[in-house]
Amino acid sequence: MKAVCLLSGGMDSSTLAYVAKDMGYHIHALHLNYGQRTEKKELQSATAIARSLSAEEFIPLDLGYFKAFGKSSLTDPAIDVDVFDENRPELPNTYVPFRNANLLSIATSFAESRDADAIFIGVQALDYSGYPDCRPAFIQAFQQVMDLGTADGTHIDLLTPFIGLTKTDILRKGLDLGVPYEHTWSCYQNEEKACGVCGSCHFRQKAFAELGLSDPIPYEE
Amino acid sequence: MKAVCLLSGGMDSSTLAYVAKDMGYHIHALHLNYGQRTEKKELQSATAIARSLSAEEFIPLDLGYFKAFGKSSLTDPAIDVDVFDENRPELPNTYVPFRNANLLSIATSFAESRDADAIFIGVQALDYSGYPDCRPAFIQAFQQVMDLGTADGTHIDLLTPFIGLTKTDILRKGLDLGVPYEHTWSCYQNEEKACGVCGSCHFRQKAFAELGLSDPIPYEE
Repeated sequence: MKAVCLLSGGMDSSTLAYVAKDMGYHIHALHLNYGQRTEKKELQSATAIARSLSAEEFIPLDLGYFKAFGKSSLTDPAIDVDVFDENRPELPNTYVPFRNANLLSIATSFAESRDADAIFIGVQALDYSGYPDCRPAFIQAFQQVMDLGTADGTHIDLLTPFIGLTKTDILRKGLDLGVPYEHTWSCYQNEEKACGVCGSCHFRQKAFAELGLSDPIPYEE
Repeated sequence: MKAVCLLSGGMDSSTLAYVAKDMGYHIHALHLNYGQRTEKKELQSATAIARSLSAEEFIPLDLGYFKAFGKSSLTDPAIDVDVFDENRPELPNTYVPFRNANLLSIATSFAESRDADAIFIGVQALDYSGYPDCRPAFIQAFQQVMDLGTADGTHIDLLTPFIGLTKTDILRKGLDLGVPYEHTWSCYQNEEKACGVCGSCHFRQKAFAELGLSDPIPYEE
């Protein structure tokens, strides 16, 4: 069995690739640079994780166009990254318009080219920032598009085993599987030390704290 | 009203951009180079058409990854382009895995970034080569994904006015609107003179013949 794993190098996607491997899949990892601020660090992390789980393939790809479109603090250095605020009524500015559909379309083209059986993406509908392209209904609709838009006879399962899990559940599972979290990176903002205040740092730190552990990566004081 | 138009520079997408303009939309044209053989010619054509209809924006983007994935004669020079054969039971090798979902995902990200009202794509379910990502059910499913995967309050209509038309209908409409067909390019195979035998040449030539006209572009003898 072959699986295409979207591997950003963050906590969720790294753990998920280990889960897919544990399920018996051969891992074809895809790392997508969409012009995010912390790409250098994410690419290092994804490379280290792909190597540590002996992926069959590790393909990093550059998608320059999100930077050209703008509208997100992750891809436009002129917009400050929103700090985490659970009372914010609207989406944080770290939302990248329709990003996950782009990632899944590329993953599906790759999976169809490789005759892969499944695609794994580490989306979550709990402990996340309310992005529309992470919700279960979006994933179900995308599976429909995959079924209809690939050649007859192609069957690729879009698997999101973390969609109903908290970050703490994910971390617990990853620790069981021996995920080297010191090689993962979640911060939206910086590359040297994680900022500790963006949405991504917030949920990551909360997970380690809930298990009474300290996160092995460095944070700003 | 703003529309994102996917503009390859072929007969359908060029005519469609003229139709969108005629409907009152301001045109934001997106031309996607996915590593197809005839990209040089297509880019010239799309540029000429965008200029001739006074598009607000014309953005050409390079997607290198389809070439890396392979599996299609359009993106892999080692595979000969299938000639048109109406008795072929399976898809021709010009099928690029899940290509249209990739194009539509990029178009949606662009449309959401620009607060556009609509996306136009020139897919057809008649006079085409049986590609799964051109059928009406695929388009309907993709509209669902757009509705669910963009920020709340975003409404982008995926418009495919040619889906039920024949190439001849499209050509008739384009002639009414003054589309300069001498600047369009459809051939899958060559860039100097159109091959005349691929699926794309086949349907284009048939349309001109049915209207008793001669196609203004050069063909191989």
